[in-house]
Amino acid sequence: MTVTTPQGFRAAGVAAGLKSSGASDVALVVNDGPDAGVAGVFTTNRVKAAPVLWTEQVVRGGIVRAVVLNSGGANACTGPAGFQDTHATAERTAAELNSVNPYQIGAGEVAVCSTGLIGVRLPMPALLAGVGAAARELSGEGGPAAAEAIMTTDTRPKTTVVSGAGWSVGGMAKGAGMLAPGMATMLSVLTTDAVAGPETLDAALRAATRVTFDRVDSDGCMSTNDTVLLLASGASGVAPSAAELASAVTAACHDLAQQLIADAEGATKQVAIEVVGSADEDEAVEVGRAVARNNLVKTALFGNDPNWGRILAAVGTTSAAFEPDAVDVAVNGIWVCRAGAAAEDRSKVDLSGRDVTIRIDLHAGVAQATVWTNDLSHGYVHENSAYST
Amino acid sequence: MTVTTPQGFRAAGVAAGLKSSGASDVALVVNDGPDAGVAGVFTTNRVKAAPVLWTEQVVRGGIVRAVVLNSGGANACTGPAGFQDTHATAERTAAELNSVNPYQIGAGEVAVCSTGLIGVRLPMPALLAGVGAAARELSGEGGPAAAEAIMTTDTRPKTTVVSGAGWSVGGMAKGAGMLAPGMATMLSVLTTDAVAGPETLDAALRAATRVTFDRVDSDGCMSTNDTVLLLASGASGVAPSAAELASAVTAACHDLAQQLIADAEGATKQVAIEVVGSADEDEAVEVGRAVARNNLVKTALFGNDPNWGRILAAVGTTSAAFEPDAVDVAVNGIWVCRAGAAAEDRSKVDLSGRDVTIRIDLHAGVAQATVWTNDLSHGYVHENSAYST
Repeated sequence: MTVTTPQGFRAAGVAAGLKSSGASDVALVVNDGPDAGVAGVFTTNRVKAAPVLWTEQVVRGGIVRAVVLNSGGANACTGPAGFQDTHATAERTAAELNSVNPYQIGAGEVAVCSTGLIGVRLPMPALLAGVGAAARELSGEGGPAAAEAIMTTDTRPKTTVVSGAGWSVGGMAKGAGMLAPGMATMLSVLTTDAVAGPETLDAALRAATRVTFDRVDSDGCMSTNDTVLLLASGASGVAPSAAELASAVTAACHDLAQQLIADAEGATKQVAIEVVGSADEDEAVEVGRAVARNNLVKTALFGNDPNWGRILAAVGTTSAAFEPDAVDVAVNGIWVCRAGAAAEDRSKVDLSGRDVTIRIDLHAGVAQATVWTNDLSHGYVHENSAYST
Repeated sequence: MTVTTPQGFRAAGVAAGLKSSGASDVALVVNDGPDAGVAGVFTTNRVKAAPVLWTEQVVRGGIVRAVVLNSGGANACTGPAGFQDTHATAERTAAELNSVNPYQIGAGEVAVCSTGLIGVRLPMPALLAGVGAAARELSGEGGPAAAEAIMTTDTRPKTTVVSGAGWSVGGMAKGAGMLAPGMATMLSVLTTDAVAGPETLDAALRAATRVTFDRVDSDGCMSTNDTVLLLASGASGVAPSAAELASAVTAACHDLAQQLIADAEGATKQVAIEVVGSADEDEAVEVGRAVARNNLVKTALFGNDPNWGRILAAVGTTSAAFEPDAVDVAVNGIWVCRAGAAAEDRSKVDLSGRDVTIRIDLHAGVAQATVWTNDLSHGYVHENSAYST
């Protein structure tokens, strides 16, 4: 049910001592081919961690045979020395794999992902030893261990699988805070044994992230390390259509994105903000994001308060097409606001559960989009005031 | 020390029963002239409360002889009926003043401001009775009572006075949440007995709010009701230069803005984000605001954690000119980040006090700007999950 479900992949997760807790912290995913196709999507933050700068180059090369990931340190804001650390990690990974595998792999075919505290150098001896240990642990059943090793404040590993006709897509992800556009603060590795060329992979991944990870906005904070990789082994021998592949990758990303929102730091609510009646999809996303990022809306939801006035105030900060006296808002199915003013009794809204749906009808067109977010809770404040990331 | 300090103004504040607490909730400020000049700045939220729509029209008319303000209800998202309520409030104010004053005043010369819960109609009989009571209480010493009557979650009234040579500027403000650009969620009335034409007043107020209220960003949430009015009586007979007037109004707005940040809901820190070395002032404001709105930076400050990595991650979301490996960051004078990487030991940073200064040097030019904000605390979450605004 994870990155090792599709044929052609092995994985491992080990404890290398990067986390003081002793939990596992180094993961390795290897694509044994026959293909070594890759697509990647990265944070749009201009302050990019060293592994992001490295992996962007690697993906541009078009071949990725291994991904090495560590938690316990983001290797962000670490200067040229931090970039050297990433390079050394890729070199060591290639060397370890070459020592046991018949084929040759170059460091330029190794993607690197890191997550954890920003601004601190990684303990390289421990990390490099962990890479060796992970290489020795690699197996076709190693997916769950890899998913565990990339966790930071996550309370549970996130994995998925989507099956096609004779082929499949597997995936894992981590991320519980710094979840915002340009992707949730997250690392995700998706694998497929489908046969697919680079353009097809790239198109499938971009189509998928655009409507899933890019619409997760837990806390409005964009990370320096976000990376989503899609690796293709071709081991199934089946070449699905571009649409079939995109559909499966989107389903996998959707599942992982929902798991991120479900496990967001300290959250007590999972909130879907459905914006309908928009002039275009981008404006619907803008409105959804403005509501998702509004701390007064988020604290109201934590307090089980269907405060539609705060929702309207957030909508009013956008440049989307709408008339203030034409907007309708429903919270969990109760239209508490019609035509920009009070409508159904807000006491009818049941906010006792974990799932909340806010539906905003702009009455300005026929486009729509959904943005997913969380409430703003005491738990969020506690976790992020006490934990250095 | 408030709106009644400059000559030519009377004010009052009374309890009309709009607040269930029984605290005062209706304020009246009257300009007895000889002039009745006015300038106004309003929320840029596209969802504007009825009193904002009304008062924008009144200010466009160029004459304001009275401002009536209520707490206990924002009269926002109340539809055409809410606008009628505002109109009726202005009519009643004019009628009350005409019944005791020799000169005639029209409803179109009465500005109206409201603050409180969004989406609920005002209890008009109580409000109109309160207008009558306030008119009877008007006095040259009524400024403090007026400042108290406009409080919502404020824990103390906010007033100021700035003295010129034979003239002065007085002011009051309210606002403790929904404090964000396009102005803090706030109402403010400034008075002056200087002699000044409409263009001079307007230029002075815009110059002042641009660098004060517009740079307060407590919680990233923009209100539907923000209004800042500057009334000029000309009663001193002194006509300061445009620069002198702008300087005094700026000082008054700065003082009130700092009082807003000092009293922000649940905050334990007052944070000045000084962005220097910027290519231009707008970009410095953009960077300051991105840091001010970042929940991970704000929670770190609540936890006394000088987490410069989160600051850099926030800077990286902007479009300002800078190179990630050239940025320096100091927290309370300690340069914890130089050239985009760790520098001085973060344990040297003393965050035990209430005042925090974050200095960000972009090394991209010579422009600068300061944005003021607060931390994100348990108190903020508590107050905003329990209190409907």
